Amino acid sequence: VQGSPRGVDVVAFDGDDTLWHSEHLFTEAQARMAELLAPYVERDELEARLRETERANLPLFGFGVKGFTLSLIEAAIDLSGGAIPARDIGELVALGKSMLDHPVELLDGAAEAVEALADHHPLVLVTKGDLVHQESKIARSGLAARFARIEIVTNKDAATYRRIIAATGTSPERFVMVGNSLKSEIEPVLAVGGHAIHVPYEHVSHHEHVADLTALQGRYHEVASLREVPAVVAQIAARSIDR
Amino acid sequence: VQGSPRGVDVVAFDGDDTLWHSEHLFTEAQARMAELLAPYVERDELEARLRETERANLPLFGFGVKGFTLSLIEAAIDLSGGAIPARDIGELVALGKSMLDHPVELLDGAAEAVEALADHHPLVLVTKGDLVHQESKIARSGLAARFARIEIVTNKDAATYRRIIAATGTSPERFVMVGNSLKSEIEPVLAVGGHAIHVPYEHVSHHEHVADLTALQGRYHEVASLREVPAVVAQIAARSIDR
Repeated sequence: VQGSPRGVDVVAFDGDDTLWHSEHLFTEAQARMAELLAPYVERDELEARLRETERANLPLFGFGVKGFTLSLIEAAIDLSGGAIPARDIGELVALGKSMLDHPVELLDGAAEAVEALADHHPLVLVTKGDLVHQESKIARSGLAARFARIEIVTNKDAATYRRIIAATGTSPERFVMVGNSLKSEIEPVLAVGGHAIHVPYEHVSHHEHVADLTALQGRYHEVASLREVPAVVAQIAARSIDR
Repeated sequence: VQGSPRGVDVVAFDGDDTLWHSEHLFTEAQARMAELLAPYVERDELEARLRETERANLPLFGFGVKGFTLSLIEAAIDLSGGAIPARDIGELVALGKSMLDHPVELLDGAAEAVEALADHHPLVLVTKGDLVHQESKIARSGLAARFARIEIVTNKDAATYRRIIAATGTSPERFVMVGNSLKSEIEPVLAVGGHAIHVPYEHVSHHEHVADLTALQGRYHEVASLREVPAVVAQIAARSIDR
């Protein structure tokens, strides 16, 4: 065990694209939709309109595969001027179902990082999307038993993290969040005074987006792999005690 | 105040068709789908196939409007042999969106029952369906502030109620569930040793389905209106103390 867990109470993980792959399923579905709509529309316009449809539907649908599939269908009908055959729309429904049914593929080092940390900290999983799909992915991930608490939420904003930190009986300075999204897992946690470990998905570095690193007093960390996370948590814990 | 709350700790309510109307939106959507599909299929066959499609998709979609809408679309394509125009499928998507966006209409007496009980008991809302839709309905119901805890779940089985009872720090014999569905809110709560108040939706009585009432030792109650619920809770509380 590196360091002491005494300065850190709770370690929380994001699910999609932090512990298991997710984004590539959306990208692949969109590519298949582009093939189906090739007779009607250019790929660029399709992508722009799909994003627009998804954004407009977000307040009603929230995040997740079911809403994404309905947005695919809506955009396909619009973009084809109603000319797309029903069979092709049926293929979009089937595409959505195959996304929901897709095996859960853990990221490299996910199981090891969760195992190593679970021995010293209560772990929380904070994930966003369709309730039944997230529950099914958590069950199939094989990691569920390692989490003391599972939070499936509609929005990952500062208020959500404040509520979760309070519910776990800790305080922000003893809370560490691990995730791949600056917007959903890093910035709101830093905003409420917590620690955040950024694990960019597929080695895309975004750290230029984190404003004013000096003001964060070492609460922001970026690692290239989940394998580095236990050591960073241990450093945070040790440093907190020194103060 | 009738009776004493001392024998009852927590009162839990179902949402859909207990506190607010929901089922009629599904019935109306299905009727519109039947109109669109009238050229292809008889109404009876449509209803049977839609139910079958919903049942087959339940493990992937869970309960809720988004999955229902995808099942409508899938069944419409199948039942029309792929002949349904894309525009009609677009109308099914729009139908789903209007269901999600529909104003929340409280049942008669819902606000009063919740108000009256919230003064004496921590209240829990236990509801099933799409996370974002349930959250939105709870917010728009105007009742959210009266609930100490809100549980949006994928399944209302005995294990779910056992977990909720434990999470509220009470025991089954001091827990009362109020709901309209024997399968989702009454039977599983009785099975774990709790009290259940059945408020049948639209005065359809189903009490013949509750097996072996004598074995329930007065833990099953049926009322015609939410207005009667506070008095029944008070009776349960008083009786528990007498024992």
